[in-house]
Amino acid sequence: MLMLRYFCRFAALTLCLLLLKDDVHAQDVYAAWRSDWLKKAESYKPSLKETVKNPVGIVKIEKDASAFQGFKAVPAGSIAKLYNVTFNKNTSGTVVDFGEHLTGYCTITLKTRRNVMDAPLRLKLTFGEVPAEIATPFDPYPGSLSRAWLQDETVTVTVLPATITIPRRVAFRYLKIDWLGSSPGFEFGITGISVKATTSAKQTPPALAGSTPVIIKDIDRVGLNTLKECMQTVYEDGPKRDRRLWIGDTYLESLANSWSFHNDSLTKHCLYLLAGLANEDGILSADVFEAPVPQSHKTHLLDYCYLYNLALKEYVAATGDKQTGLDLWPVAKKQLDIARKYALPDGMMDYEKANREWWVFFDWKDGLDKQAPLQGITIFTLNQTYELAKMLGKQHEVADLPAFARKLKDAARKNMYDKQSGLFVSGKNKQVSYAGQAWMILAGVATKSEAQRALTALPTLNDAVRPGAPYMEHYYIAALIAAGLNIEAKQAVIDYWGAMVKKGADTFWEVYDPADEFKSPYGFFPVNSYCHAWSCTPVYFIRKYPDIFQR
Amino acid sequence: MLMLRYFCRFAALTLCLLLLKDDVHAQDVYAAWRSDWLKKAESYKPSLKETVKNPVGIVKIEKDASAFQGFKAVPAGSIAKLYNVTFNKNTSGTVVDFGEHLTGYCTITLKTRRNVMDAPLRLKLTFGEVPAEIATPFDPYPGSLSRAWLQDETVTVTVLPATITIPRRVAFRYLKIDWLGSSPGFEFGITGISVKATTSAKQTPPALAGSTPVIIKDIDRVGLNTLKECMQTVYEDGPKRDRRLWIGDTYLESLANSWSFHNDSLTKHCLYLLAGLANEDGILSADVFEAPVPQSHKTHLLDYCYLYNLALKEYVAATGDKQTGLDLWPVAKKQLDIARKYALPDGMMDYEKANREWWVFFDWKDGLDKQAPLQGITIFTLNQTYELAKMLGKQHEVADLPAFARKLKDAARKNMYDKQSGLFVSGKNKQVSYAGQAWMILAGVATKSEAQRALTALPTLNDAVRPGAPYMEHYYIAALIAAGLNIEAKQAVIDYWGAMVKKGADTFWEVYDPADEFKSPYGFFPVNSYCHAWSCTPVYFIRKYPDIFQR
Repeated sequence: MLMLRYFCRFAALTLCLLLLKDDVHAQDVYAAWRSDWLKKAESYKPSLKETVKNPVGIVKIEKDASAFQGFKAVPAGSIAKLYNVTFNKNTSGTVVDFGEHLTGYCTITLKTRRNVMDAPLRLKLTFGEVPAEIATPFDPYPGSLSRAWLQDETVTVTVLPATITIPRRVAFRYLKIDWLGSSPGFEFGITGISVKATTSAKQTPPALAGSTPVIIKDIDRVGLNTLKECMQTVYEDGPKRDRRLWIGDTYLESLANSWSFHNDSLTKHCLYLLAGLANEDGILSADVFEAPVPQSHKTHLLDYCYLYNLALKEYVAATGDKQTGLDLWPVAKKQLDIARKYALPDGMMDYEKANREWWVFFDWKDGLDKQAPLQGITIFTLNQTYELAKMLGKQHEVADLPAFARKLKDAARKNMYDKQSGLFVSGKNKQVSYAGQAWMILAGVATKSEAQRALTALPTLNDAVRPGAPYMEHYYIAALIAAGLNIEAKQAVIDYWGAMVKKGADTFWEVYDPADEFKSPYGFFPVNSYCHAWSCTPVYFIRKYPDIFQR
Repeated sequence: MLMLRYFCRFAALTLCLLLLKDDVHAQDVYAAWRSDWLKKAESYKPSLKETVKNPVGIVKIEKDASAFQGFKAVPAGSIAKLYNVTFNKNTSGTVVDFGEHLTGYCTITLKTRRNVMDAPLRLKLTFGEVPAEIATPFDPYPGSLSRAWLQDETVTVTVLPATITIPRRVAFRYLKIDWLGSSPGFEFGITGISVKATTSAKQTPPALAGSTPVIIKDIDRVGLNTLKECMQTVYEDGPKRDRRLWIGDTYLESLANSWSFHNDSLTKHCLYLLAGLANEDGILSADVFEAPVPQSHKTHLLDYCYLYNLALKEYVAATGDKQTGLDLWPVAKKQLDIARKYALPDGMMDYEKANREWWVFFDWKDGLDKQAPLQGITIFTLNQTYELAKMLGKQHEVADLPAFARKLKDAARKNMYDKQSGLFVSGKNKQVSYAGQAWMILAGVATKSEAQRALTALPTLNDAVRPGAPYMEHYYIAALIAAGLNIEAKQAVIDYWGAMVKKGADTFWEVYDPADEFKSPYGFFPVNSYCHAWSCTPVYFIRKYPDIFQR
């Protein structure tokens, strides 16, 4: 008996050690992989194309209740009007218009116009993506994010002539120049302003079909600009803010890139970078930084981990680059652990637990119940990852996926599909949302006719939770197309992104709620990003589905 | 008759042309000289000694009605207290103390302390020479000079670790660091602050006699610091403001330099630079700049033109460098034209006319009547220039000077000396001023006993116009010494400069009125210079007259 007890203890200890050893071994392997992935990421880092851009004129920012956020930019003369005058108190507040959204480094040249410069001069330069950003005082700053995101810089110049380059990279269309001080006894002028604009988008995407409606052409143009601006050495979410690689934005950007600029090296760079900066156990960080050295933010978004798999699958499908697929397959396989961990025996995802342990994102939308989206995206990811496995000849490593996905799908149909209303419901309060329908439909939980019924019903329901940001709109459009609601998909793109175009967007916005133009997840609309990667996907839809959009 | 008329016309025309030719010839000669002087100025430009300085601790700037301008700096811990903490809203406003006045380039290093830097950070750095400058908001700016003189700079940092050097040169003892924004999700710290301090003062002046009173030692120490800080590639008036070469400051700085740091090359550089940047006719500009290229300010102060002669004479006397004296003799000779132009037949200087055509300075003192000071400085300059001529063997070129000076002196005695009161009076209102007595006595208009009587009476007169700034105090002390009032001279230095020392001066101030610590010629006391060349001259007095001051 005693012997048995000792034996049991010994066996348990051995098992523990073996498991620990396995863990340690797995971590060792991951460490080696990560190091290799980071090296590869570095080798695929894209070069930037630099273009010197000059202002197209000066504008006045005027109040206009009918304009986006209540302000519009009205042409106020050629740039010569600025370059040929003395800059002083009277010209303070001049707004220069570059005519397009630019990301890069701004240089301003100044010279003495009359008398000798007998004191330093002081200017404030405020860079803005949209007119209201220029017109709204930044201080006292009420936002929840760093005040330093706002792009106002004060410069002191002690000797003229001078050429000053603002050290920080800026993203903007409008530049307001305020005079803060100079000697009353001398006169100076601004003789040049330029921006060294950067992007890693180098190819010119093919023109759309001649039959394409003008509004679609416009949406495509603004979408391409958005994507181009966000394509730097990584897919940035926004060149003004947050200027980093998020998985969610990368997925959508890489989709759009595959149908436009075709910078596959950038996608590869980002996929390797994310892989190289995963946790020790291989779970991905939602966002990572490149400077001063590649590092992860240690922020984890459950749905973004899944999206990595989708992005990798789409990359391999679009490029045929199986080598990268195989190299990064362990990452995709690892993210499946999340699905395995939170799947309950009845096939439902344990949203409560997942939500306690993760940031489950899906959308900037207060009150959105995320049970249905989580169930949907998990099924979608399982299926898509299996597709990836098949492409890579790895299906034997994840042979359980089809059955696993089916189990979750069956549970979803059983627990979340309301046959009477024909809608998917989410959570205890049986919330009906665009996000819920979209992810269920993308996951294939609904039949085509069920999908059509649900999506057709949605706009008629006052209490259906609408998308909060263009990011969720993307999945809604994808669901409409998946359901074969092509006319509705086109109209939805026109209604949402077309409205931004009509409101003067040069690039698509991070947040756009037609009912609240000042909506900000950060408590202050000027800190919103007005050129945001996740908003660029009409480019993808328009170009992937010419039969729907280009006629 | 007709012939005569034609002949007259012809003669007049010829005369005109000849005069014009002479003028043109003189200008040609001057142009060649100026070019040569500028080249020589460049060749004598001193190198700067660079020293890296670190803070000695942190301080709190506290209100204290008994402190200079109502604020004092109270020690608040070692610098480690700053370097070892997270810098954020709570530490915003930390004031770093370098323990001495420094002029140079400030570098600050920052690092991440916790979490990942996921947003830029923004700091405001305010450099101040005196505590009240740090404690007083700069905006809305009420001053008459450029707001940009004030030394507050805002920096945005996007990547940590970072080492930031503020591009502008700063002059300060205290540095306030304000937190303007950073991500709530991460913590950063300041890990180092240093200043690359510059000066062209390289020698260590000899120690004063052991018998020297402590207060005199202190005044000498602060004076040497003031001079050292102002000695850059030129004698600057103030390293914070105006950072340029003024003749008036140069004269006093070069006097003090001759008795302390002995950087004769700097004096020579300045004398050549001023000469090279004179008007086409050789009249000097009161102040000049070195950057971006040597250029004059085209400001003309009558009394400063004279002071060039005094400075050149003192330079030759102190160094024996006759070559430079001879080279620049034409400049000194030219400035005499001013005396010749405004001297009336009765020997009085035409102050009204001079004042219409020039800035006649003498002091920052509203209401000062400048007739007497002008008469005095003119006589003094004529005499001193004749001394210079004798040293250079050029007295034959200015043989009229002794008689000219005597004529002005006689007129001064006759018209401006009130035998009854024993005081010199100035202008229609017969104003009695320190400036008037000082310049008359320096000019030798008074006998020694008359001088003693006048200077002894001055402090007893409530309505005598007192000096407005240390610059005029210098000439007052010089007059006391000239009058043999040695005890009074020493006491006046102790009373005036000693009071600044007692009020905590690290360097002597541009403006110091014991009755009004907020006095500013520019409408805002923080824009005053608190390290000002013209205030350094106790160094000269203390070291030139050891029998008076060093016992």
